[in-house]
Amino acid sequence: MTISLGMVTFDTTDAPALARWWARQTGGTVDSAYGDGFVLVRAVDDGPVLGFQQVPDPTPGKNRVHLDLAAPDREAEVERLLADGATLVARRGTDDFPWVVLADPDGNQFCVAQADDA
Amino acid sequence: MTISLGMVTFDTTDAPALARWWARQTGGTVDSAYGDGFVLVRAVDDGPVLGFQQVPDPTPGKNRVHLDLAAPDREAEVERLLADGATLVARRGTDDFPWVVLADPDGNQFCVAQADDA
Repeated sequence: MTISLGMVTFDTTDAPALARWWARQTGGTVDSAYGDGFVLVRAVDDGPVLGFQQVPDPTPGKNRVHLDLAAPDREAEVERLLADGATLVARRGTDDFPWVVLADPDGNQFCVAQADDA
Repeated sequence: MTISLGMVTFDTTDAPALARWWARQTGGTVDSAYGDGFVLVRAVDDGPVLGFQQVPDPTPGKNRVHLDLAAPDREAEVERLLADGATLVARRGTDDFPWVVLADPDGNQFCVAQADDA
């Protein structure tokens, strides 16, 4: 099979701002080589690039496709994310596999799980 | 930074079917260990897992977050995807960096670019 995942792209009305926010959360590097209409966040590891694509009218409501992040210290990461503008949506899962649903400043929901559980 | 991308999850009304479709397209392996309500596709490489989460009411309209795939032979992959139930949405980009927008059987849009360009 010769197809691979290179990027996950978000529609947004403010690509530079949302890219900067996600770069801060993931430790990635903002790449604005394509201008303000399409801003990349290159990951520190070899993971997929995050793309932020300026559109006038992102589809409203809960994003049907979402990121699931993992952190060795889930609660510390959640506190950090909340302090930097994320909002808490829900705490879900089971005792064995809990996760936290947050939303970014654009309202894109994402989950944070414990890295050991992920 | 200690947070990493582990999975990209799709809301869908038929998680097993959509997972099987994406597994065929990416060469990944379907993991149904969590039941039909949450089916995984594990990538052949060390890329993120794709998750398919059964929900009664996925948000309608264009998915605000989408996958960008890359293939060494873009046109061959596009033909293969179309033959397996993808639909053509648009051809976009520039002569130097063209890409094709397709939709999966649930209507989730995704892009396919040339791997060399990606």
